[in-house]
Parts: sequence; structure tokens; C-alpha cells
Amino acid sequence: MAITLRFSKGHGTGNDFVLIADPDDVLELTTERVQALCDRHFGVGADGVIRAVRSQYIPGGVGAEILAENPDAEWFMDYYNADGSIAEMCGNGIRVYVEFLTRSGLAELKPGATLPIGTRAGVRTVQRSADGYEVDMGVWKLDGTEPLVNARELKVARPGLGIDVGNPHVVVALSDDGELDGLDLSYIPVLDPEPYDGANVEFVVPAEPLVQNGVGRIRMRVHERGVGETLSCGTGTVAAALAVRYWAGERAPKEWRVTIPGGEVTVRMFEGDGGEHASLSGPAELVFDGELTLV
Amino acid sequence: MAITLRFSKGHGTGNDFVLIADPDDVLELTTERVQALCDRHFGVGADGVIRAVRSQYIPGGVGAEILAENPDAEWFMDYYNADGSIAEMCGNGIRVYVEFLTRSGLAELKPGATLPIGTRAGVRTVQRSADGYEVDMGVWKLDGTEPLVNARELKVARPGLGIDVGNPHVVVALSDDGELDGLDLSYIPVLDPEPYDGANVEFVVPAEPLVQNGVGRIRMRVHERGVGETLSCGTGTVAAALAVRYWAGERAPKEWRVTIPGGEVTVRMFEGDGGEHASLSGPAELVFDGELTLV
Repeated sequence: MAITLRFSKGHGTGNDFVLIADPDDVLELTTERVQALCDRHFGVGADGVIRAVRSQYIPGGVGAEILAENPDAEWFMDYYNADGSIAEMCGNGIRVYVEFLTRSGLAELKPGATLPIGTRAGVRTVQRSADGYEVDMGVWKLDGTEPLVNARELKVARPGLGIDVGNPHVVVALSDDGELDGLDLSYIPVLDPEPYDGANVEFVVPAEPLVQNGVGRIRMRVHERGVGETLSCGTGTVAAALAVRYWAGERAPKEWRVTIPGGEVTVRMFEGDGGEHASLSGPAELVFDGELTLV
Repeated sequence: MAITLRFSKGHGTGNDFVLIADPDDVLELTTERVQALCDRHFGVGADGVIRAVRSQYIPGGVGAEILAENPDAEWFMDYYNADGSIAEMCGNGIRVYVEFLTRSGLAELKPGATLPIGTRAGVRTVQRSADGYEVDMGVWKLDGTEPLVNARELKVARPGLGIDVGNPHVVVALSDDGELDGLDLSYIPVLDPEPYDGANVEFVVPAEPLVQNGVGRIRMRVHERGVGETLSCGTGTVAAALAVRYWAGERAPKEWRVTIPGGEVTVRMFEGDGGEHASLSGPAELVFDGELTLV
């Protein structure tokens, strides 16, 4: 049955989303509908769809687990990739989601307060920051791998560092801006050995100066697993900052500004529940509101 | 000064547009605003912006010329490419524009009647058709060139046929679907000799059967000058049908169905004012309505 749908379109550093308020879980968001919405020529166009629905309605025990973890996690981020598949978390998407929730009056987030959001990766805590919103991305760890990485226009393969930020990343340091800008990421980087499930690959270079006012600074480009080069990848910026700090040693800053093609975000490292956490902060923009009919 | 803008988003065979009603010419559509609207991640996303404005307001004598040519051409298609540059005409855009005009009540178009639309290429006449709208694309001619064309994954260069449909095209026949599908049009086709101003290049193969119920049938892919491969190019489908009919000879059909990556259109050839005309018919879809604030 055709439905008429109101939506908002937003982005965080160019990573863009269609947002739909469905508090009481009445919308059937089929794979076909997600694909139709995300199509950039025939639909609205986005990297993904985020449905705002109350956690209590999320089936399979997921909603119950969320609310057991934090009873205040009223809102669930029901995230779909452009191909209709489900994603557990999205570091840029959750900022735009909180902007959408607060703007549409579904949730309130005062300066200094935090808002817990249910995701398929568990509860994530969001607060306002100078540049928009800051999200606790949870515990990270080195995954123990250091594959060799090659890419188009690199003359020799470089050692990468495997980092698990809920999803797998390999971070590679390049020597300068020229090398970074010269990459042709329309080709998939070659990893040796190839991780079983593939990995997102981040190429980083230091900014000049590397540290300013106690904050580390890097530039990054990313090839997302199954997608290609993107303007921004939330978990990728976190992995990149973590890798550079690992290489720089214990005395390096715990706060890093990461410049990506779509803008700039900040990664902070701190001790939290269960071990070493990282947070990601950055802008969240709602660009327009719209209405369409879906078949 | 920031303005709040209502718009519609639509497409014709995947060639997509932001449409804005500005009947009385109050909107200042700067290059920056067009670029912001067309950005697929930070804006609405489109191949171009079409402003619906009355012909009388078009400056530089253009509006006066339009109305002198046809006093009923009340509406002008003020078309901007995604980079903010002005385009004279757009064969897919004009169908979507007429759908927008009629849906928003700015113009009326009864079955069997015609609607004259002012464009920078002169007045174009539109009527309803079985598949959407049919547009008289005006007079065409062979431009007298037959450059050799090569492209990635073609083993040898092929002879092309230069056709002028208001803008320059070179059409190349390939031997089969496999050859057409195997093209890598992320690379610019190489023309020898290279036309002074470049050209759009269309690669065509016959469908099976080539003629059905008196209608010719071809498949086409296009590399648009300055853009790259697109889902559809209105004038390109016209040029492709004209070239195939030229090669097939005088007894070939005067109506051709052209399948492109974004869908299907029909090209008809007929005698009209000033010589041999071609018309283009195809679908026009309005996908959603939206509202945003532009700085």
C-alpha cells in the first residue's frame, strides 16, 4: 500500500541520511523502500536511512536489552545502509539523529546533559559539543594485525595497523599531502594478508604542525569496505586517530582533530566502562524537510 | 540574505532536477546557490536546477525574443547545470518542467493540445504522449564529421558520426551487448580528430529484433562532455536514433525506441519548420516536495 511520508535530510561531514520519525513503529521500511529512498537520481538520495522509533518496539530482544542497559534510552537509531542492509552503528549518523530528535521535539538535550541512544551495538551516549555533538564510541582495541597495504599510485606497499572500533579498520601512514592526494581510491586497496571479512582502510598524513595547543592534527582519506571512497567515515576517523597516537607513543595528545574530504571531526581518548574508550565529535546539519509517496 | 524556499525534485529517465516556482522573478539564483542545491551530499542533489519564471522577465532581450516567436510561451525554462553554468536546453528537463508546471497549476496542458515553453534555444513545443511528454527538439543536421572513436575496453577505434542537435554529438555503433556493457566510461572516449569544443559520445547497439511493429530499437550508453557517463542524455538519445536511421537508410523506421541506463525514451523524425525535426518523448516523474533555507 502506498504511504505518504514526511522526512528530513541531513548530513554529518557529508555522510548523509534520510531521517523519518516513526515513534510508534507503524512504518514498514522494506529493503525496496530503503533502496528507493537512497537512490540519488530516482529517490531522495542518501548513504542511509535512519528511522526514529522507540526502543521498546525493537524486536528480537534487542529493545529489551537496550532498556535493560539503560532505561532512559527511549529512542532507538534504526539504521539502514543504502542497499537496505542493517548497520549496527554509524558515528556520523548518530549526531544527525540526535539533531533530528531534538529539532522535532522528540527528545531534549540540554548543554552539559547526555542523551542515551539505543543502537544495535548497544547504548551510545551523546552530548552537545563546541562543534555539534560528541558521541562515546565505546571500547576500542588493536586487533593484532599489521597487514601490508598497497593502493593505486603508491609505489610500494606500506605497513598498516589493524584496529577494531566495533568494525574492522586498517590504518596506513603516508609520507605527505602529495602522496595522500595522489591516491586513486576508485580502486580497492590491496591488503596482505587479506582480512577474512575485509576492512575499511584509512590513509593518514600528519598536518603541519602535528600538534597545536595540545591537540593532534591529521588528514585522512578512507576507502569503505563494500562502498568505495567516501567523504567521511565516523569509525574510520576514530581508528585513524587511535593509530596515529599508538605510533606517536604514550606522551602524544589524547585529542585529535581529523580533516576528511567532508569536513573536520575531533576524536578524544579516555578511560571508561570496560576499558579504553574513544569519542567522536563533529557537526550535524539538517538540510531540508520533504514529503513523498512511497509504493 | 537567507531565504526559505519550497522546491520539488523530479527526474526524466534518471536525469534529475530541483524545480523552483518563481513566477514573478523575485529569486536570486546565484552560482553558489545552484551549486549548494545540486550537491548530492550537502544539498538536495541534482544534475541541474530549473526555475519556473515568466518569459517576460528574462533579460537581455531573450524574453522579448521568445514572446515575439510565440506570444503563448508564457513560461520560461531557466535551466542551470549543477556547476551553476547556464544551459540552453535539456531534453529530459523540459518534460519534468512541464509536469511541474501542470501539477503546480501554473500551466494547463490538455491531451491533444500543445504547450510552448521558452528556452535559451528558442521556443520548444511540448505535448502529452503515451509515455509522458513529447518535445519537438527542433531541426537537426549531420555536422559532416566522422571522427575515429576509441574507449577503454574497445580493442580498435571505430568510425563515429557527428550530429548537431543544438549541441555536438558523435555516435558510434558497437557490435553487440557484450561490447557495450564492457565499456569503461569513467574514462573519456578519445576522438580523432578531436572536435574543437569536444562532443557528447553515444555508443549504440541494435536491440533484438532491430525493428518491431514498425519501430526501430537500440540500446545506448553516453559519455557527456564535461560530466562523464550519465543515466540519460536527451539530445544524446535523439542523436543516436538519427545516426542509426542514417546508417540504416531511407526505408528504416522514423520512430525509434532508445533504451538507456535510466530507462526508455522514443525519438520520432518528421518534417517541420525549417527542415528535418526530431522529437523526444519519455517519462517525467516528480519524486518529492521539500523546503529548505538557503544562505
